[in-house]
Amino acid sequence: MNEPKNDTDYSDLKALFINCTLKPSSIDKESHTRKLVDVSKNIFDKAGVNTEVIRLVDYDVPVGVHEDMTEHGFNTDEWPELQKKVDGADILVIATPIWLGQISSVASKLVERLYAGSSKTNYKGQYKYYGKTGGCLITGNEDGIKHCSMALLYSLQHIGYTIPPQADAGWIGEVGPGPSYGDKKENTEGEKIEHVGFDNDFTNRNTTFMTWNLIHMARMLKDQGGLPKYGNVKSDWKDGEKFGFENPEYR
Amino acid sequence: MNEPKNDTDYSDLKALFINCTLKPSSIDKESHTRKLVDVSKNIFDKAGVNTEVIRLVDYDVPVGVHEDMTEHGFNTDEWPELQKKVDGADILVIATPIWLGQISSVASKLVERLYAGSSKTNYKGQYKYYGKTGGCLITGNEDGIKHCSMALLYSLQHIGYTIPPQADAGWIGEVGPGPSYGDKKENTEGEKIEHVGFDNDFTNRNTTFMTWNLIHMARMLKDQGGLPKYGNVKSDWKDGEKFGFENPEYR
Amino acid sequence: MNEPKNDTDYSDLKALFINCTLKPSSIDKESHTRKLVDVSKNIFDKAGVNTEVIRLVDYDVPVGVHEDMTEHGFNTDEWPELQKKVDGADILVIATPIWLGQISSVASKLVERLYAGSSKTNYKGQYKYYGKTGGCLITGNEDGIKHCSMALLYSLQHIGYTIPPQADAGWIGEVGPGPSYGDKKENTEGEKIEHVGFDNDFTNRNTTFMTWNLIHMARMLKDQGGLPKYGNVKSDWKDGEKFGFENPEYR
Amino acid sequence: MNEPKNDTDYSDLKALFINCTLKPSSIDKESHTRKLVDVSKNIFDKAGVNTEVIRLVDYDVPVGVHEDMTEHGFNTDEWPELQKKVDGADILVIATPIWLGQISSVASKLVERLYAGSSKTNYKGQYKYYGKTGGCLITGNEDGIKHCSMALLYSLQHIGYTIPPQADAGWIGEVGPGPSYGDKKENTEGEKIEHVGFDNDFTNRNTTFMTWNLIHMARMLKDQGGLPKYGNVKSDWKDGEKFGFENPEYR
Repeated sequence: MNEPKNDTDYSDLKALFINCTLKPSSIDKESHTRKLVDVSKNIFDKAGVNTEVIRLVDYDVPVGVHEDMTEHGFNTDEWPELQKKVDGADILVIATPIWLGQISSVASKLVERLYAGSSKTNYKGQYKYYGKTGGCLITGNEDGIKHCSMALLYSLQHIGYTIPPQADAGWIGEVGPGPSYGDKKENTEGEKIEHVGFDNDFTNRNTTFMTWNLIHMARMLKDQGGLPKYGNVKSDWKDGEKFGFENPEYR
Repeated sequence: MNEPKNDTDYSDLKALFINCTLKPSSIDKESHTRKLVDVSKNIFDKAGVNTEVIRLVDYDVPVGVHEDMTEHGFNTDEWPELQKKVDGADILVIATPIWLGQISSVASKLVERLYAGSSKTNYKGQYKYYGKTGGCLITGNEDGIKHCSMALLYSLQHIGYTIPPQADAGWIGEVGPGPSYGDKKENTEGEKIEHVGFDNDFTNRNTTFMTWNLIHMARMLKDQGGLPKYGNVKSDWKDGEKFGFENPEYR
Repeated sequence: MNEPKNDTDYSDLKALFINCTLKPSSIDKESHTRKLVDVSKNIFDKAGVNTEVIRLVDYDVPVGVHEDMTEHGFNTDEWPELQKKVDGADILVIATPIWLGQISSVASKLVERLYAGSSKTNYKGQYKYYGKTGGCLITGNEDGIKHCSMALLYSLQHIGYTIPPQADAGWIGEVGPGPSYGDKKENTEGEKIEHVGFDNDFTNRNTTFMTWNLIHMARMLKDQGGLPKYGNVKSDWKDGEKFGFENPEYR
Repeated sequence: MNEPKNDTDYSDLKALFINCTLKPSSIDKESHTRKLVDVSKNIFDKAGVNTEVIRLVDYDVPVGVHEDMTEHGFNTDEWPELQKKVDGADILVIATPIWLGQISSVASKLVERLYAGSSKTNYKGQYKYYGKTGGCLITGNEDGIKHCSMALLYSLQHIGYTIPPQADAGWIGEVGPGPSYGDKKENTEGEKIEHVGFDNDFTNRNTTFMTWNLIHMARMLKDQGGLPKYGNVKSDWKDGEKFGFENPEYR
């Protein structure tokens, strides 16, 4: 085997995980979803990428589609502080459990709040998430990784994130009720305690590939100064610059 | 207005559109979906990108999840020739009409056939679609652009494509039966014939932004020689190289 | 025209609407989604069905997948009171706005809370929503009625509701930003104020058909005492009664 | 245990399964999806319901959204014969494998062809699938039962089928490549050959409950002569009968 090497410096990159479990830390410190987050986080950390993990349900974040809901009738809103973390990160990974085959309502609220800020622009005049890279991690005891990933990755690209190859990973068990990711189980000899899903090669490989593809894309985008600003600036479009577009009515 | 300029050379890039209308050309040369494809194609062409449009239903392509179905009992299979076109293109845009809120069955078959080839690897040992860029175009007379885009963009990233920001565009009318994209209509004065959707600023802008984001990402990936090969090569993983991954069981 | 007649008594039926707008009444009494709810409610009312409309976001309902979250660390939870309304209604209509092509996070939370109660059983031993009838109403200014309906109707049938034919209705406008359902607009002569969507024949017909199909199915199920209890009682299954099922391993 | 009894006669009911595997019988007689179909079929048979199973890919059925594609340029079309079987059945169960988290392209084509016929009316003037009952069965080696069920059950109710409670069932394994439903495996003692999924209690129970709920609903609808014709007849609506609907503009 020709051993792969990698001496690239990633210490200027920042990755933010938002864990969308339904359980506040005050009630249950454990989170199955967090366990899979930690697998990815560990790879980021060893690569020198700065990481942070937020559990959204721990914050007082109202529903809404505005940047600061205190300007829209709510007494408190911790989202603006969290938005700063999103804005400061090169990489965003949304992590969610599966409920009835869908992303959690906390993840759904997150998408709405991210969307609220998406019409703001960066210094080039592009939508502000341009130049950032996104992925997702999904856990459940049954069914729905791909469906949940569709919802999250679609939303991320729609608001401006770049999605590198294979930017989703997750774990589910065989159909039916059963243990969740990281739950303790006896091993087949009944001698030793192991954890459900930790030895799933598919989950481990996909989580690793996702993490590295996020790193590579973030490195590339940062080195290039984000996406070139041509053909994707809404103020230019509004001003009449059409970047080669011709209305088929008159072509 | 500070007029945007762009002197980058894109003449080495190739973009392939696959139109997944249900109607063979022999039956109906017109295709609503093709009309929107042409809006994007025209921008590519003017930017110097080489383009080609395929109407999948015109080819004898059986269903299946193998690269060449003649090796699996079918008498004919034109897919291997089409696969070469996919392999030779830097950019793939899947275009589909909406039926009952879903991508067409032709688009569904396309995804299955693309998937069949996805385990092959490129010269770096990465899955072979790595380094390529994907997007989608959706038309219907009502409802489903985002849902169809979720399905297509998810599949593309899952098999190795990079999805740049806002890589989907489309047109639908107000809910209910009605004209499709490009159908003729009288204008409000009843004097002149116009075409449905051609003046929709949202569709036009999104199609333009999508096209340019695909170009920028393809340019960037080609200039960088694709994604770096580290952390995303399955044979390395199989050989025991874990790229920083640590099994949480033993960490 | 052979004028249709209908003398059936529906006065013992109860229909509950849950409006999943993101806006609390205290902030904005208006709700586009509520306007479409009222179109359906009016038909129910005239048919003699008892109706009630709840705006979920007005209640203090935490996220979670338990029946009463005060037993799981939360200080307050108004859901148990709302669950009683759900349990007392023969018909449930979930109404939601569309955000990024998806049901609102409030609707997502609703599904999680409904799901939490779904393992309880009725007097026959069937899952407790058996015998009830469900539908949905969707509004947005662009794209997603069918996708949102898929999510809601799937969840309802999965937890025990019967879905009659064409149990979804909604309104969206042409793709792109624009007015929402019930927003004021000048009519074409610029003389009179009208409301967006109110004259959409497709929306009106589908809302009417949905309402009547819910009524017919609820009437039928109530008259029959719900679904027969055979082949659908989990305690019987657990006790070894297999209702004709044979394990193919031994057949 | 109070043994459940059931003396109802179901011999006038007919259930049609359409297996949407990608593999023609001429190439592979085996179909994982068919194995799960047979579990449900056996319950129907023992209940006295008449059953038939079609493998759609064995027929020459072009894509399209018309009832008979030979009237739209195709040389052959076996769908009209299959449509008669659909029309003659009280119960339709669509069975599909999962590919990339989605229903197969054969299932997608089936939905398009069923949709083509959906505007025809029954003797009451209702859309012609009114009064029929629908469900689905899903198999895969990983991920997507609920997502595929959403797509199929939504389509069925949209075109007029009634969906009884818990009308979907399926089997998938733990995430990652692995055996499909019914594949042979050695049992834990390595002595005896067993079949993957056959002993999954969740799959078996859900398949049983689905089957019985389809039977109960079909029985109920047949005994009642289908859904009452009031509020759901498009020609009445077109003729100006509004069934209690009032345009909110004028209310």
